Amino acid sequence: MTSTVGIDIGGTFIKAALVSGEGKVMRRARVASGVEGGADEIERRVEEAVGELGGGGVRGVGIGVPGMVRMDDGVVVRSPNIPAWNDYPARERLSARLGIGVVVDNDANMAALGEGWVGAGRGTPSFMMITLGTGIGAGIVLGGRLWHGDTGRAGEFGHVIVEPGGAPCGCGGRGCVERYASADGMRRLASELGIEADVPEIMALAGKGDPAARRVFETAGGMLGIALGAWFNITDVRTVIVGGGAAPALRLMLPHVRDALARSVYGVEAGQLRLVPAELGEDAGVIGSAHAAGIRRDDDG
Amino acid sequence: MTSTVGIDIGGTFIKAALVSGEGKVMRRARVASGVEGGADEIERRVEEAVGELGGGGVRGVGIGVPGMVRMDDGVVVRSPNIPAWNDYPARERLSARLGIGVVVDNDANMAALGEGWVGAGRGTPSFMMITLGTGIGAGIVLGGRLWHGDTGRAGEFGHVIVEPGGAPCGCGGRGCVERYASADGMRRLASELGIEADVPEIMALAGKGDPAARRVFETAGGMLGIALGAWFNITDVRTVIVGGGAAPALRLMLPHVRDALARSVYGVEAGQLRLVPAELGEDAGVIGSAHAAGIRRDDDG
Repeated sequence: MTSTVGIDIGGTFIKAALVSGEGKVMRRARVASGVEGGADEIERRVEEAVGELGGGGVRGVGIGVPGMVRMDDGVVVRSPNIPAWNDYPARERLSARLGIGVVVDNDANMAALGEGWVGAGRGTPSFMMITLGTGIGAGIVLGGRLWHGDTGRAGEFGHVIVEPGGAPCGCGGRGCVERYASADGMRRLASELGIEADVPEIMALAGKGDPAARRVFETAGGMLGIALGAWFNITDVRTVIVGGGAAPALRLMLPHVRDALARSVYGVEAGQLRLVPAELGEDAGVIGSAHAAGIRRDDDG
Repeated sequence: MTSTVGIDIGGTFIKAALVSGEGKVMRRARVASGVEGGADEIERRVEEAVGELGGGGVRGVGIGVPGMVRMDDGVVVRSPNIPAWNDYPARERLSARLGIGVVVDNDANMAALGEGWVGAGRGTPSFMMITLGTGIGAGIVLGGRLWHGDTGRAGEFGHVIVEPGGAPCGCGGRGCVERYASADGMRRLASELGIEADVPEIMALAGKGDPAARRVFETAGGMLGIALGAWFNITDVRTVIVGGGAAPALRLMLPHVRDALARSVYGVEAGQLRLVPAELGEDAGVIGSAHAAGIRRDDDG
């Protein structure tokens, strides 16, 4: 039995999956997160979700959390969407509760790990996966392993500044790329041009030739290209996987992303940079979390 | 005998040093590069420099080159300052010529390796070293090893865009950080404010309270801070070593770098980011090259 359980904790739902050693989802469960009930209640829901999978003989559990995780002790340092888990010893508590080895990491990291295992990053040792959602999250895989940085918060790609003094961001800065190229960012750009619509609607308008809607993707793409230019110039890692709810907009942004890259990446043809759509969709997180649990067991011997 | 030879090839001089296994420079040599004489002539000069060191029993030779090196075969793909070495099989040729194992890498990478071994990066597993010279070069060490990227050109930090549509750069882009915070960049900023001077002179003027000179470091520091913000946000690597001829200007830039970082780095107090001066000065390259040769021998067993 080489299966593991992957869990993706969101502000609304906890998703869990029993995943085979080959990365196949064999069973799924979904329960409400119960974040208003506090840390204990969330733990209980995690236990419930794992129970629903009915997985006897599971080798380990991986848990992706929307927040910053300290890797050496598995403590969730900060989780804006799950305040009860600020400074919360998730690995210790959940391992005790579930009676099995637990690995905890940031959810964007887990999604990147999943895409690298059996998704768009299969066979690519180094890549960044960005997730275009409310903001822009990122997980970084270098040489086949997640890159966590000095304190576990690597991948704050959404806060790379692309317009100094530009649109104010929730982080306290201005001109962060996520203010332009996330779902929220594109809605904001559209709103400034008199379109009150969500991303699929803006895409539909652009498809009909609406100049303001097209301008949204031109701006969003150009800004995303500047930030990706920083990524490529610094790391020389040429593969970027794009996922998240607003990822379909990549198609409309792409010519403008490429224009910006051609102007910003030194010594490389823009065509040598690979921007590829994520393949696992909503499953990336649970699959990656399950993989993290498997890797951990392997490392332990 | 555990000493190795480190060589730093520049457009004007070839510097060589015999370096002990503890990173001490035991002997030095310097010869003209002879770049106008073509590839053979440069090889001859390298041989001459190594000969001047008189090092019998040397374990290996490391060579830092001002250009892009393909790591799998040691070919210099491109070297703007040594055109004869564009697409040049440096490792193979020099190894045959010197009759000893040779390691070739980019000079900024070798300098970073040197600072990590016995300089400002001692004991710090992950850091970036930036070199403020004519442009801005960078070498990246992650988890104790040089990070080369997919094709060996990681560390083009100088071409991170900090002002979209800003000052034209030799790379074909606009608003690259090296157009503001390198020695050339600072001279350019000063010139625009009516000061025709080099960096030490601009520093002296700023020290006397000259508002235009102070403005140069304010702008350069702010722009460097934006680019460093991208670095920190993406990698969460908190140590950046600053070297190069214009590094003394860091002191005047620092308050403005810190202001920009405070506005651009998400979830971290700006004070937690370490900007430290390089310690090895002009020796970083030869020491790092010697270390690269030693690591290679160790890897070989």
